[in-house]
Amino acid sequence: MDELPDPVPRRGEVLVKSLACGICGSDLHAARHTEQFVATSREAGGAFKLTTLAPVVLGHEFCAEVVDYGPDTPRDLASGTRVCSVPVLLREQPVGLGYSDEVPGGFAEYMVLSASLMVPVPGDLPAAHAALTEPMAVGRHAVAKAALRGGESHLVIGCGPVGLAVIAALRAQGAGPVVAADFSPRRRRLAEQMGAHEVLDPSRGSPFTDRRFPRDGRTVIFECVGVPGMIDQIFLGAPQGARVVVVGVCLEMDQSRPLIAINKELSVQYVLGYSFEEFTDTLRLIADGRIDVAPLITGTVGLDGVAGAFDDLADPERHAKVLVQPWDDVSPGEGRAG
Amino acid sequence: MDELPDPVPRRGEVLVKSLACGICGSDLHAARHTEQFVATSREAGGAFKLTTLAPVVLGHEFCAEVVDYGPDTPRDLASGTRVCSVPVLLREQPVGLGYSDEVPGGFAEYMVLSASLMVPVPGDLPAAHAALTEPMAVGRHAVAKAALRGGESHLVIGCGPVGLAVIAALRAQGAGPVVAADFSPRRRRLAEQMGAHEVLDPSRGSPFTDRRFPRDGRTVIFECVGVPGMIDQIFLGAPQGARVVVVGVCLEMDQSRPLIAINKELSVQYVLGYSFEEFTDTLRLIADGRIDVAPLITGTVGLDGVAGAFDDLADPERHAKVLVQPWDDVSPGEGRAG
Repeated sequence: MDELPDPVPRRGEVLVKSLACGICGSDLHAARHTEQFVATSREAGGAFKLTTLAPVVLGHEFCAEVVDYGPDTPRDLASGTRVCSVPVLLREQPVGLGYSDEVPGGFAEYMVLSASLMVPVPGDLPAAHAALTEPMAVGRHAVAKAALRGGESHLVIGCGPVGLAVIAALRAQGAGPVVAADFSPRRRRLAEQMGAHEVLDPSRGSPFTDRRFPRDGRTVIFECVGVPGMIDQIFLGAPQGARVVVVGVCLEMDQSRPLIAINKELSVQYVLGYSFEEFTDTLRLIADGRIDVAPLITGTVGLDGVAGAFDDLADPERHAKVLVQPWDDVSPGEGRAG
Repeated sequence: MDELPDPVPRRGEVLVKSLACGICGSDLHAARHTEQFVATSREAGGAFKLTTLAPVVLGHEFCAEVVDYGPDTPRDLASGTRVCSVPVLLREQPVGLGYSDEVPGGFAEYMVLSASLMVPVPGDLPAAHAALTEPMAVGRHAVAKAALRGGESHLVIGCGPVGLAVIAALRAQGAGPVVAADFSPRRRRLAEQMGAHEVLDPSRGSPFTDRRFPRDGRTVIFECVGVPGMIDQIFLGAPQGARVVVVGVCLEMDQSRPLIAINKELSVQYVLGYSFEEFTDTLRLIADGRIDVAPLITGTVGLDGVAGAFDDLADPERHAKVLVQPWDDVSPGEGRAG
């Protein structure tokens, strides 16, 4: 842990206190493999914003509280108002919050946000729940890009936070049946809690042999693992005409056999992020209880618990989401209640 | 050349004379690399029908003439009527015409067809033109699967017969602009004759740097080459949100970087074949002159010219489509007028 000067809001910006901020798989990757992550980000210029080896305060899944406004900035929301924001600061060059050495991310006590991107948190929704708007919005966007027509079967492969967000988004818009597959018993339980109608253990055989999925475009498969070989495995198992949505981010070169996809006339939609509207919709769905994020929160830590949480998150049996609450004194005992 | 017994039509089948039959890239592949082709076909179970090493008469792009009917088969079309058919014979197990050791394909003098699949050739359309219904239908199907909304730019990569069929289908339904790319000057000329608004030479730089294509789903890219690495190159060059339609059949394992496709939210639709309706529509478009196939026919040979034509077709500067006319005595001189 380090002391840094508090950030100073510019015109159009707001100084906020970070109340809760989720740890994301990308954070783990950025912390553990910083040089590779920075190299890939520079090359890719999109999915990942970390392009510096200078010290960075991570954290882009946050709920914060308004403290003060920058110069000439209308004070639209009173001090103390709790807000969420897409993790972008609108400067000359947009800044990726949580992946920048210019301003701190949500694992700091203070951040600055763009006033125009702040969304007030409805009612008494806990900050920890509101902080999950960002990862849940990823699921909502993936489901929107799937362009569901109704009457499809849905298979979610991988039940880490991304897969769980997809399951939640599918159920929030009434889609079914939703089948989820993961090797981890804990994650399969979480998938059920998020609304999966059925869960499968791929170690017992391919999900596609375990269960019959409809042909002719009526099966939609969400790839939420992001390791090489997944897409080819899906090509092999998918029914004729299946639509594949790739949400898991595979950072490496991947291999697949086009002939298999051609024979089945598969389609693959690659997706990234979410829109401002999808983000605000997701916050509303969480506040309305149509997406219940409580089961996802398997641990809460103060700033002194972040390093330990980064270690613990490697184990899928232990955690889904760990939230950092920079202002809370959370003892490890209660904090890691996952 | 070999003498085989004439095929005997069963109930529901029709004995026909093959009037003209195009040589397809798959025929070349099947003839040159038979064992590999058969192995891939068995594995793939769809795109390619050749699953035997027994002698096969190839030829699936044909126009034929009704000679006689099988037992108990209504004589709906008079003898001498010219017909096309999707290259399938509806027996207990459907037979792929031109890829079967059970019945001969269109490079024989006589074939049998399923009466229910025969489509009469309109008016005085030359048999050689009607024979191109099959390869042209591949383009029509690819364009249908692209689900064009209007207002898109279209890039066709590879101007062999598949790419040329896509160009023709795009123009037949009024789509534009259509940009086509091929290394071969001859093929670029053919692309223009089939209606491409603009042709690009990839040896002068990527089509994507040569010309600006619109973002946000308004560029549709047809991959009509089918060799490893094409899809990754398209990922690299494509504008944000581009839709890729894979028509070229890559028989090998392929490599690509999902992260690039994710950053741009690309989609990939793999396509195969055509429906019965797309086939009959294509024949009508050719008969109406809305698809002019004349420029594609770069050579005509009799049965004794098939072996030579298989050799000549390796050179993209020399030929697009060579038609086999089993009943004609075509001298090599006039025949290879390409």
